[in-house]
Amino acid sequence: MVDSRFHRSGPARTLDDLARLTGAEARAGTRGDRFTGVATVADAGATEIVFVEDRRYLDALAESAAGACFLQAELAERAPAGMALLVTRGPQRAFAIAAAALHPAEAAVPGIAAGAWVDPAAVVDPSCEIAAGAHVGPGAVLAAGTILGANAVVGRNCMIGEGTRVGAGASISHARIGARVVIHPGVRIGQDGFGVVPGRDGHVKVPQLGRVVIGDDVEIGANTTIDRGALGDTVIGPGCFIDNLVQIGHNVRLGRGCIIAGQVGISGSTIVGDHVMMGGQAGLTGHLHIGDGARIAAKAGVMRDVAPGMAVSGAPAVPIAEHLRQAVVLRRLTKGKGA
Amino acid sequence: MVDSRFHRSGPARTLDDLARLTGAEARAGTRGDRFTGVATVADAGATEIVFVEDRRYLDALAESAAGACFLQAELAERAPAGMALLVTRGPQRAFAIAAAALHPAEAAVPGIAAGAWVDPAAVVDPSCEIAAGAHVGPGAVLAAGTILGANAVVGRNCMIGEGTRVGAGASISHARIGARVVIHPGVRIGQDGFGVVPGRDGHVKVPQLGRVVIGDDVEIGANTTIDRGALGDTVIGPGCFIDNLVQIGHNVRLGRGCIIAGQVGISGSTIVGDHVMMGGQAGLTGHLHIGDGARIAAKAGVMRDVAPGMAVSGAPAVPIAEHLRQAVVLRRLTKGKGA
Amino acid sequence: MVDSRFHRSGPARTLDDLARLTGAEARAGTRGDRFTGVATVADAGATEIVFVEDRRYLDALAESAAGACFLQAELAERAPAGMALLVTRGPQRAFAIAAAALHPAEAAVPGIAAGAWVDPAAVVDPSCEIAAGAHVGPGAVLAAGTILGANAVVGRNCMIGEGTRVGAGASISHARIGARVVIHPGVRIGQDGFGVVPGRDGHVKVPQLGRVVIGDDVEIGANTTIDRGALGDTVIGPGCFIDNLVQIGHNVRLGRGCIIAGQVGISGSTIVGDHVMMGGQAGLTGHLHIGDGARIAAKAGVMRDVAPGMAVSGAPAVPIAEHLRQAVVLRRLTKGKGA
Repeated sequence: MVDSRFHRSGPARTLDDLARLTGAEARAGTRGDRFTGVATVADAGATEIVFVEDRRYLDALAESAAGACFLQAELAERAPAGMALLVTRGPQRAFAIAAAALHPAEAAVPGIAAGAWVDPAAVVDPSCEIAAGAHVGPGAVLAAGTILGANAVVGRNCMIGEGTRVGAGASISHARIGARVVIHPGVRIGQDGFGVVPGRDGHVKVPQLGRVVIGDDVEIGANTTIDRGALGDTVIGPGCFIDNLVQIGHNVRLGRGCIIAGQVGISGSTIVGDHVMMGGQAGLTGHLHIGDGARIAAKAGVMRDVAPGMAVSGAPAVPIAEHLRQAVVLRRLTKGKGA
Repeated sequence: MVDSRFHRSGPARTLDDLARLTGAEARAGTRGDRFTGVATVADAGATEIVFVEDRRYLDALAESAAGACFLQAELAERAPAGMALLVTRGPQRAFAIAAAALHPAEAAVPGIAAGAWVDPAAVVDPSCEIAAGAHVGPGAVLAAGTILGANAVVGRNCMIGEGTRVGAGASISHARIGARVVIHPGVRIGQDGFGVVPGRDGHVKVPQLGRVVIGDDVEIGANTTIDRGALGDTVIGPGCFIDNLVQIGHNVRLGRGCIIAGQVGISGSTIVGDHVMMGGQAGLTGHLHIGDGARIAAKAGVMRDVAPGMAVSGAPAVPIAEHLRQAVVLRRLTKGKGA
Repeated sequence: MVDSRFHRSGPARTLDDLARLTGAEARAGTRGDRFTGVATVADAGATEIVFVEDRRYLDALAESAAGACFLQAELAERAPAGMALLVTRGPQRAFAIAAAALHPAEAAVPGIAAGAWVDPAAVVDPSCEIAAGAHVGPGAVLAAGTILGANAVVGRNCMIGEGTRVGAGASISHARIGARVVIHPGVRIGQDGFGVVPGRDGHVKVPQLGRVVIGDDVEIGANTTIDRGALGDTVIGPGCFIDNLVQIGHNVRLGRGCIIAGQVGISGSTIVGDHVMMGGQAGLTGHLHIGDGARIAAKAGVMRDVAPGMAVSGAPAVPIAEHLRQAVVLRRLTKGKGA
């Protein structure tokens, strides 16, 4: 199922290996005890593992030839005879951990390619992998295990933490990046924020004199843009996951562990708490406060502060229950009326 | 009209040449029979051809100095005396075909530029054109006539079909690309999909172990992002046209001939049929089924399946007639009320 | 406050220097007369200047250790004793001018880096700075003081005006760019517009035979895309400010001094007047006329022409007062109803 031309496999694992790794309870099967990869329920064979978290897949599970399956205890009886089980309250989470063990990401292959441009005044750990066409500016510091993809650019005096990966063609300036950060291709970090004082006789640009600070274990999707602060920092807290084509304005601050879906836009100086989730194409105006654990629905247009734990939807955004009532009311009002 | 510094011209064509090429019916004029280029109705001269499909341009047509015009039979009498006519039911389509003949795209100039980085273990057809700064990874296969623009990146083991063009700074990994595909600058294909299992004690990233498969004759707009599958493939069917800054999530499948306007976002695992059209900034949540021939209006927020042939609009999206009624009802309700 | 690793400082300025530069009225203080940088009201010290335009910051101002503050006359009494004042009707504007003097942008460091690819048939002024990995195509003309960042690409026959800066990884083709333009990283200018004639038996691509023309003093945000005209030009008027991830379709024309926020999309052939402002994620369909001074709210979906000076909001967009009434009516209708 996993195409070996694109994804490597690590050593095979036994059921006990996988149980230890994930904290699942192992129930042995009869299809073998040597697992080498992951697959979908429909496609898996005896050396592959799968997971079921959604009851919609139970019929497929009954017919699956997979060697082992992560699932919750109450679904165990629905697995076919002979399939080994890995019983856990979080099957997808356990599966993700097992998949990362069976198909480990490529490690850095130390070395600076011919055709990479590393300034003599940069500090690059010998364990880093720098592809051809990549640039490292003067004073930049790359910690152990950093990988710079083809044509990636790290500007003057930027700091990159251990094990961080910068994708092809991404560019970073005016920034301090944490450890184990994954920056996908085409990401833009640290360019000028959008600061302009409008005037009839010509607008005046506000110099953007801040930085970007990104915590550890952050993931940033392809072609996403994160502007540096006007004064002070734009901050992405540790453990945030940001999808593709997201716009993050100057002086925005995201707390820990936020999950931001594709094409979201967050305007300048908005402060976002911890563990906030935002659906695709949501937009937030500037200078807002979004409380811890708030949820912003896809396409929401948020123009006011959102309290901790609150879920909002619609444009302008309102509490999600109210937005649903609006939709119901509109449907009733239009019933039976010709267009 | 066409600036020769930026667009080349092929050999001149006669009216009969153009009729043959497009299936139009030729009606000779008196302004000459040697057509060398295309122009707008307002700007064209005697050696240039134009088209009229919209009645709004009939007044301009009457005054046009163009040598020849593609138009429908019922508008023929509105053309000025002396202008040659090319009568067809699809004037814009015929014009597009003629324009491509008069101003052909640059063909590949075979060769690998100094400063391109082609891995010794890549297979590059001698007819390919590889610009400086472009990368071709080990095991990658580039078929005849492929053009890689400046700083484009093709990753390990990717396959690129005949006559495909990859724009400046685009990057491709984990992918199989068809023939005659046009990939515009800054496109990102094959990076990790957005897979994360949320958890209070830290989110777990789901390894993205699939691929991207793109059919023949697809066009992909600048800075668009197409993530690879989590397991299995993200698929773009043959003949799809995708505009700029579009986000296509992991395991999305587009059928044949879909037309997707700018800044659309399609979330993971949504399956789209053939000949579906989506307006700009539309968003689709994940795991939906969109039937053949469905039409999604600009800015729609689609949260449910859409039946074949159905047109939907609004956020949340409803059948387009209902959405229009909602707008009418809202307008009535607010009439005469102060803000 | 300003991190000297990322931003340089010019010579120190006296209060009179700053007054002369900005047209503000100087009122001397006792904290010193040597200003070397800018900071926020909360963080500034005696050698730094600040501004207050919003009354929300008056409490912070009272406690601020800043050496000098730009503010309006009526707020002067709220400043702490000893702080020098720069009294002006436009504090932020004056501050921006002062900040640019205290922290001037890096000037071009003339020279073509080893690893830059400049075609022998290009004309590059000796004062230009061309980074490694940058490309300049045949016939391209770069005026004095142009800066091309790492891996930036300027295509065949393009013209770039004096003092224009092109960010890392940006690409330009089929274009004429004015003077003092700032093009941020990843911007895509001049690629094919989205022209396709749909057909059941296969869509036909419309050759895109125009150009992009960009006026002086324009700023274009990271990863923004500006397609070239189908026939004729896509035009960005002088003094426009365009934020990140904006999509501008073929043959769009923006007048002078427009301000376009992030993730806006403007469809093909829409004509926008002077000094139009658009909020984030607004979308405009094609072939519209937007009058001078119009304001398009964030997330608006504009489907009709907008008169000069009019403000519109909502999707479909209506005059902003009407959109606010709709929201009020909806809120009333849903009050007291269960979800």
